[in-house]
Amino acid sequence: MNNVWVDGVAQASIPASDRGLAYGDGLFETIRVSGGKTTMSVYHWQRLQHGCQRLGIALNLSQLRDEVAAFLQTSAVGSGILKVIVTRGSGGRGYNPQGCCSPRRILSIHPLPERKPDPGFVGARVKMCRLRLGRSALAGLKHLNRLEQVLARDEWQGDYYHEGLLSNDNGHLIEGTMSNLFVVSRPGELITPDLSFCGVAGVCREFIIDLAHSRGLTVREQPVLPTLDVAEVFLCNSVNGVWPVVECEQRVWPVGPVTTFIRDCVLEKLHG
Amino acid sequence: MNNVWVDGVAQASIPASDRGLAYGDGLFETIRVSGGKTTMSVYHWQRLQHGCQRLGIALNLSQLRDEVAAFLQTSAVGSGILKVIVTRGSGGRGYNPQGCCSPRRILSIHPLPERKPDPGFVGARVKMCRLRLGRSALAGLKHLNRLEQVLARDEWQGDYYHEGLLSNDNGHLIEGTMSNLFVVSRPGELITPDLSFCGVAGVCREFIIDLAHSRGLTVREQPVLPTLDVAEVFLCNSVNGVWPVVECEQRVWPVGPVTTFIRDCVLEKLHG
Repeated sequence: MNNVWVDGVAQASIPASDRGLAYGDGLFETIRVSGGKTTMSVYHWQRLQHGCQRLGIALNLSQLRDEVAAFLQTSAVGSGILKVIVTRGSGGRGYNPQGCCSPRRILSIHPLPERKPDPGFVGARVKMCRLRLGRSALAGLKHLNRLEQVLARDEWQGDYYHEGLLSNDNGHLIEGTMSNLFVVSRPGELITPDLSFCGVAGVCREFIIDLAHSRGLTVREQPVLPTLDVAEVFLCNSVNGVWPVVECEQRVWPVGPVTTFIRDCVLEKLHG
Repeated sequence: MNNVWVDGVAQASIPASDRGLAYGDGLFETIRVSGGKTTMSVYHWQRLQHGCQRLGIALNLSQLRDEVAAFLQTSAVGSGILKVIVTRGSGGRGYNPQGCCSPRRILSIHPLPERKPDPGFVGARVKMCRLRLGRSALAGLKHLNRLEQVLARDEWQGDYYHEGLLSNDNGHLIEGTMSNLFVVSRPGELITPDLSFCGVAGVCREFIIDLAHSRGLTVREQPVLPTLDVAEVFLCNSVNGVWPVVECEQRVWPVGPVTTFIRDCVLEKLHG
């Protein structure tokens, strides 16, 4: 990471006493930057604020947004990924977070991942991961406790697969390692897994739910079976946009019309 | 933290790119130091090595142990707590840990916590936490994903309670926020919760299981009901030793003979 700010200052290191390191006591956002500006930022800041409230981290969001604006101006990056980490800071005693009131902000900029050909157009090949996501009191949050994702992502190597799908203890599909899952069950109806008990409530997922509602599509949050006996399947995140799934464990799908429509709307949003 | 080494060098900061910060991608040990030496170290190194194997972190344990010895010598601390954090280091791409082969070692020394009167002798008052521990693929490991413990510990303030007890989704007791749980169900028989699906397999817990076997006591790893309808209850960790539980949600227990015996054996071990 060449360009890093910690608490508003250009600096590539953090105190070893940070609770983000000690306990994963914090949250993050991975934001696509286009034309020097953050995209889907309303959704990102809303989720971050919600997460801070849930964890009891007293983030000053307006200060953070000012820092992000100054950071992007200084970085002079047109396109890229902005990573924002907010930790509870240093302090407290053991696990006890009480008395720890100075959240730390860590901003860094990274190149956009490139895959050629672009899975957003030719489609993504996906595998089923063995790791099962645990039921968590912190479901939905994009917190720093991400070992499940690390281990799931380690289940395959090489370029053949673009993403891995994760299930819960009941065998229901929940999400990809770095993306959310939608299926088109019948014309005009999207289903995405309910994330009340595990999974990360992605920003792009929220955008798509709002988009669908505004276009008269139905969205149901309900269990998705691994048989994936549906017309279309797609994955989404706020960096890559929408990836139509064209292959998963011997099943194949075309890049369907609903997916194409949503992909293009998301792409427009991500291009700022 | 005044005294910190990172990768064998005195230094109080780590790169902001560390995966321990980004994802909690690492493990830790909290080791009691007595007479300038680590205690229960065979158990600590064994658990750390097992955890590294499970996470695929290529730790050089013998290098780490040399660093710890040099660190303690330099620190010249007689009694205290040594915290050892091992992360996967910097690198990899997103969650993908592949190609990230230089684990980072972070050593720090802290004063022993002091509570007067000592709950090890007068007993501990314990509350039931609301937070339920999720079933996890990483059960048993002392990894850096510890938000559950942070939130559980935040459920009470002040000095009245010494510890909080955590249950799983079925309502079975699993552990304390920073300790493991044992109950004496009948003379000569200890029960401690099975940690196959959640919880941290504490070093002191392992020591007590071995101790009990060597003294002809039975130890069963099986569900413990929250009614705690048992003769004795105690908590343990490798810093505080054994705390007899004397009060939990309107129930009271004396400091019983089995607990006292085990507490004294553990204390002897922790005094080096």
